[in-house]
Amino acid sequence: MDESAALFTDLYEFTMVDGYLQEDMHDEAVFSLFVRRLPARRNFLMACGLEDALRYLETLRFTPAQLDYLASLQLFSDRLLRYLERFRFSGEVCAVPEGTPLFGEEPLLEVIAPLPEAQLLETYLLNQVHLQTLAASKATRVIGAAAGRPVVEFCLRRSHGMDAGLKVARAAFIAGLDATSNMLAGQRYGIPVKGTMAHSFVQAHEGELEAFRTFTRYFPDSTLLVDTYDTLRGVQHVIRLARELGEGFHVRAVRLDSGDMLALSRATRQMLDEAGLQRVNIIASGNLDEDSIARLVAEEAPIDCFGVGTSLGTSSDVPCLDMVYKLVAYAGKDRIKLSTAKALLPGRKQVFREEENGVARRDVLARHGEQLKGRPLLHPVMRGGKRMEGASPSLTEVRAYARRELERLPPELRQLEPISPPYRVEASPVLAWTREQLTEAWEASP
Amino acid sequence: MDESAALFTDLYEFTMVDGYLQEDMHDEAVFSLFVRRLPARRNFLMACGLEDALRYLETLRFTPAQLDYLASLQLFSDRLLRYLERFRFSGEVCAVPEGTPLFGEEPLLEVIAPLPEAQLLETYLLNQVHLQTLAASKATRVIGAAAGRPVVEFCLRRSHGMDAGLKVARAAFIAGLDATSNMLAGQRYGIPVKGTMAHSFVQAHEGELEAFRTFTRYFPDSTLLVDTYDTLRGVQHVIRLARELGEGFHVRAVRLDSGDMLALSRATRQMLDEAGLQRVNIIASGNLDEDSIARLVAEEAPIDCFGVGTSLGTSSDVPCLDMVYKLVAYAGKDRIKLSTAKALLPGRKQVFREEENGVARRDVLARHGEQLKGRPLLHPVMRGGKRMEGASPSLTEVRAYARRELERLPPELRQLEPISPPYRVEASPVLAWTREQLTEAWEASP
Repeated sequence: MDESAALFTDLYEFTMVDGYLQEDMHDEAVFSLFVRRLPARRNFLMACGLEDALRYLETLRFTPAQLDYLASLQLFSDRLLRYLERFRFSGEVCAVPEGTPLFGEEPLLEVIAPLPEAQLLETYLLNQVHLQTLAASKATRVIGAAAGRPVVEFCLRRSHGMDAGLKVARAAFIAGLDATSNMLAGQRYGIPVKGTMAHSFVQAHEGELEAFRTFTRYFPDSTLLVDTYDTLRGVQHVIRLARELGEGFHVRAVRLDSGDMLALSRATRQMLDEAGLQRVNIIASGNLDEDSIARLVAEEAPIDCFGVGTSLGTSSDVPCLDMVYKLVAYAGKDRIKLSTAKALLPGRKQVFREEENGVARRDVLARHGEQLKGRPLLHPVMRGGKRMEGASPSLTEVRAYARRELERLPPELRQLEPISPPYRVEASPVLAWTREQLTEAWEASP
Repeated sequence: MDESAALFTDLYEFTMVDGYLQEDMHDEAVFSLFVRRLPARRNFLMACGLEDALRYLETLRFTPAQLDYLASLQLFSDRLLRYLERFRFSGEVCAVPEGTPLFGEEPLLEVIAPLPEAQLLETYLLNQVHLQTLAASKATRVIGAAAGRPVVEFCLRRSHGMDAGLKVARAAFIAGLDATSNMLAGQRYGIPVKGTMAHSFVQAHEGELEAFRTFTRYFPDSTLLVDTYDTLRGVQHVIRLARELGEGFHVRAVRLDSGDMLALSRATRQMLDEAGLQRVNIIASGNLDEDSIARLVAEEAPIDCFGVGTSLGTSSDVPCLDMVYKLVAYAGKDRIKLSTAKALLPGRKQVFREEENGVARRDVLARHGEQLKGRPLLHPVMRGGKRMEGASPSLTEVRAYARRELERLPPELRQLEPISPPYRVEASPVLAWTREQLTEAWEASP
């Protein structure tokens, strides 16, 4: 864990915690982390980021330098600084496993801990779960659009910073992508790494054919990028190289990175086939997203693999979710919030997913402790600040789980466009009644 | 420098470098980092990220564990591994200073170095300069819309990961924001930190008025968040608190975080004024962006300060730029690339900004070495792998420079909507001629 995470926090968390400490408000709080509502272009989200959230909770400590900085601001009490000096998270966490498809208002995780502890965590937990859920959710769309063709993630250069580059690779792999170009993600997470060649390699040589000759000398079973000057002339150069090398020609694929992908992939396939190079695959890349991939698949473009970068790495059509971390109970009492269009379901929760023939048909948001039909999605993952057994699945296990969960969704949710009516998510009668009671009590208050 | 940055690299950089090494292609290469064209909703960009780029170049080393990982892939030659083991960047960098307004095709920086060195840097340089330029560019819009009212950055929870949280705060400060809620950015960069309170603090108390009493007991000159239940009832509670505390009331501001900001800010102002609380300011936040801020300013909403989060932190309307790092010269020869719609201006460059009465009127993209009218924007910042004197301005200096540079832009560029015709950026006759010659030569080639 990067120790700087302890200061990766909004200032107001510290002031609020200071206030709680001074008032001895140490009772148990429940904070719920959820997305208020689905963005227009998402029929579901895929929960991701729990692993980093738990690691943060296990390891959060304040260093002397950090405490010095806080003291230097002359904003906080000594009591706060002494509290932070000894800080260890001691609470409980319930969460849906990474890879679980989720909907608006459904908690991704709930923190149950003394109020100051639970408050302090807000910023980092939101930051990590937001990014990774955003990325996994986008990736499910790309995977769905590719309809079984492999997809490789090329996001790194335009993801938002180093942390995003790494975490997006992980989230995309969980959601079903096949490989990444990101070497750090390869090393850190064991994700398969893949790469081709860039235009610069071709440009650095006197001609394209010469560049292909050089590259295959050292990487015989590589992928050759053919669009540096003119895609179809590039393909001709590959064919010429195949004639030159004969038996020694092992090029696995050509990569098209610009232009009209449908027309170019068809022409390329035809040229390669006519040259007897049926076994040379076609990889398409260059500003692809789920929409362009879906169109290419629908038109049966002869593309064997997609490389997807920027649109996935930044979730460019939906670069943020309305994800929040809200107090829903304190000191044994449910808590609400009524701001316009931002009302809150009170209390600790559970989500039950009802299925019919193995396919989800409705989610019911319930109060914690209710026993309803369906499969409960939230599970305890941490108690007394310690991660529970079974709460550390391997990346491969998470990926397999995500795949099974996706298969249990109604197939229409996998469409790229919004479906109407949306998937049903309802509050249980008890939960709805609780909210009503609290709202009425507030309205009657002075 | 985070040592993991060395593997923050696309796989293909390593394969290409391996090829170059095997072929002894060590001649000098020039790579140019630029944005191909401005996004529709940006009239200019603000260059940012050079500081991290230079620090990376100064410190890039490969650790034994990283080399072991690379070796374990069984893709690379021993020659590559030995090269990486001893890697030190030895080249030259020319760049525009952070805070410089820029346009499409204009280099943010150029790397001049032996081909393998210059190639290896691509991913990290793009990642950092892309993110920070994106964020600074977005921030100039927010600042412009606020028309002199202070703006505080509240991005952290929904920026894409830890690195983005930190770098966006820095970029936004350079572009002119006044403060951040991000404590890590405060510690790391010395940016002023600001914070208010969250809904949870109010919810954790039995009533809103009680919460305000508690908070002001410890933070007398704080900002009170008034929309947890009902904004105008919240304002009434602030007024009641003022009556209770009399001389001891030092609340600086109220924060509105939801609802119709124009109507609520007017009603709030009137209520506060009628209660003799003219000196209590109004801060607005909650999904604000440059467009909503511009509307509020145009309607003269009585808002004294804006808090901007997600839209700024993710540059949500334009979450990515078409930024690339392209080989433009190698071994003394200019290099081109002709892919559809992605053509490239060859050779090492300079940008001249022509001004009239201190206002920019046209940029000319020229070949390096040309002496044209106007102010050259690219300056040497690193030689022989060492940062040059004057290439490490303080953050305050960068911010002051950015402000001066913004003032030198034609005022219409500061509009939020695209202007037509756009600002003029032209290739010098010599540069245009060079491109033509190279294109013709390629077309005549076999």
